[in-house]
Amino acid sequence: MNTFEPTAGAKIVVIGGGTGSFVVLSGLKNYTHDITALVNMVDDGGSTGVLRDELGVLPPGDVRQCLVALSRSPEVRELFNYRFADGSLRGHAFGNLFLTALEKMTGSFAEGVELASQVLQIVGRVEPITFENVRLFLRDSNGMHMGQHEISQLKFDGKKRPKIQLGPDAKPNPRALSAINSADVIVIAPGSLYDSLAPTLLVSGVGKALATAKAKKVYICNLITKPGQTDGFSVQDFASEIERLAGYKFLDYVVYNTNKPSKRTLGSYAKDGEFAVDLPDLTDKRHYKMIGRDLLSEKISKVPKGDLIGSSRTLIRHDPDKLARQIMKIFFS
Amino acid sequence: MNTFEPTAGAKIVVIGGGTGSFVVLSGLKNYTHDITALVNMVDDGGSTGVLRDELGVLPPGDVRQCLVALSRSPEVRELFNYRFADGSLRGHAFGNLFLTALEKMTGSFAEGVELASQVLQIVGRVEPITFENVRLFLRDSNGMHMGQHEISQLKFDGKKRPKIQLGPDAKPNPRALSAINSADVIVIAPGSLYDSLAPTLLVSGVGKALATAKAKKVYICNLITKPGQTDGFSVQDFASEIERLAGYKFLDYVVYNTNKPSKRTLGSYAKDGEFAVDLPDLTDKRHYKMIGRDLLSEKISKVPKGDLIGSSRTLIRHDPDKLARQIMKIFFS
Repeated sequence: MNTFEPTAGAKIVVIGGGTGSFVVLSGLKNYTHDITALVNMVDDGGSTGVLRDELGVLPPGDVRQCLVALSRSPEVRELFNYRFADGSLRGHAFGNLFLTALEKMTGSFAEGVELASQVLQIVGRVEPITFENVRLFLRDSNGMHMGQHEISQLKFDGKKRPKIQLGPDAKPNPRALSAINSADVIVIAPGSLYDSLAPTLLVSGVGKALATAKAKKVYICNLITKPGQTDGFSVQDFASEIERLAGYKFLDYVVYNTNKPSKRTLGSYAKDGEFAVDLPDLTDKRHYKMIGRDLLSEKISKVPKGDLIGSSRTLIRHDPDKLARQIMKIFFS
Repeated sequence: MNTFEPTAGAKIVVIGGGTGSFVVLSGLKNYTHDITALVNMVDDGGSTGVLRDELGVLPPGDVRQCLVALSRSPEVRELFNYRFADGSLRGHAFGNLFLTALEKMTGSFAEGVELASQVLQIVGRVEPITFENVRLFLRDSNGMHMGQHEISQLKFDGKKRPKIQLGPDAKPNPRALSAINSADVIVIAPGSLYDSLAPTLLVSGVGKALATAKAKKVYICNLITKPGQTDGFSVQDFASEIERLAGYKFLDYVVYNTNKPSKRTLGSYAKDGEFAVDLPDLTDKRHYKMIGRDLLSEKISKVPKGDLIGSSRTLIRHDPDKLARQIMKIFFS
């Protein structure tokens, strides 16, 4: 158990859903206990997709990852991410079944998440950005595409910014808006622009809340471009897309990595058309402050046991503690 | 949370597995915290059977029920018994998936049960009677039958006592034997003689341990006969079968119910060939003391939500608190 005493008043909101949120939350929980993770609700792939289709529940996958990031117990973390390898349960993450059972039992996703948070004794809170059963839609030159899973694999022309929306229109979770309103720092986590961050920023009222909130608003820029979606993007391009999706120029800080991964690691990414985001041209001034730091994890990431989606290469990842320290520095600045 | 202070030294072992163990444990946990539930490991029906077949795990079903009985939290109880109603998860009790994930994750059923007990913060301990992957076999005049599920539905001539054994021979869990050796009271829970109690009593070394243990040994007699298996059984017949299966005359007390269920309730059982066990002929003396008391539950039992196995009638059940008080009375006597 951690003996750390929480910093009074460091109210931090982290917006996102996938691995990026996981990394930010894992680091931050050691510096404040007042964290709210706002999570997109459009996951429809893998275990989560099967549960949505078969049982009509809201998507548990991203909520599960955030609960795991905020949990204090290593066993709970391992258990929640455990995936069944055989039989009719094959591919299901245990945590997804846990959240699904709780939603079915209580009749409410919100109550299910609440109860799971209690049972897991997590630091902070996890709030779905909406409780509506929404899907993600993206229109490119080939027409309309539906679903997070499909959109995550799409290759459209990265230079033409895609039209993207939720269907049906999603009412925000009031507790998500209220967390934004009362935060000291709001962090847009690194992550997939169109299938992970967009579905949080597009929920109606979220952009406006971000624009009017008194918090310091920080975007942690991605480390790597996504082929067919963000090829050749600069740090400023990423930030511009975040603001376009939210509908407001709300950012105060953009934090980017300055430590280039090894040639060998970069080489294995390049084969898939993925490249490190270049250092920004700092003469290209914007309304936000740019902060460049070494944010790279030196740890060689391993693919979680039983994870059917992971790859086996060395992963380029943010270091949770370096990120958290930078965010706290902004809080104290 | 319970404010009760545990009775020092009331070490109680409860042997069985199904509903009978559940009822005894639910009552006892309010009178002592030093309870060890010893559980048979031959379940192969329903959700448990699917998990054994598909994932090669040990049977979680009866362990789950005992964990639920000993848990302090109503939410955990409800969650663990929650059964999925649709899709590929249909019929699975959530608690079974929980135990299966833990066994797979830790690589050991024992560690899985241990970890589950911690997470659930149960009163006492649950110990599988063996960690061997055993099946139950029964030979009657029609030949050999395999599996708890099949044997539970068998109708053989109740007057000819069946040959019953585990295959392969099962080594006992050493912690189960040590709990028997150091107990103050050992309770043989009411339950199905051949498919629930036999597979605990037949594990090698268990009968001898029961015979030599210093504890007071109590059998709680069934309320109802099972058609084709225990038709016409007296209280003494049940007790004799328990001792035949264990291979030793080890009982000190046999506790039976004296409060006859209502005519209407009995009628609904009689349609299925099930009858209340008659009051015993007390002139038929044995080596154990017979104790007759009102042990009947006045509560109308409802079938758990989502339970695919349950029936919808008024159930004839022991009252957990009446049983627990009688057991504690024997402890203090």
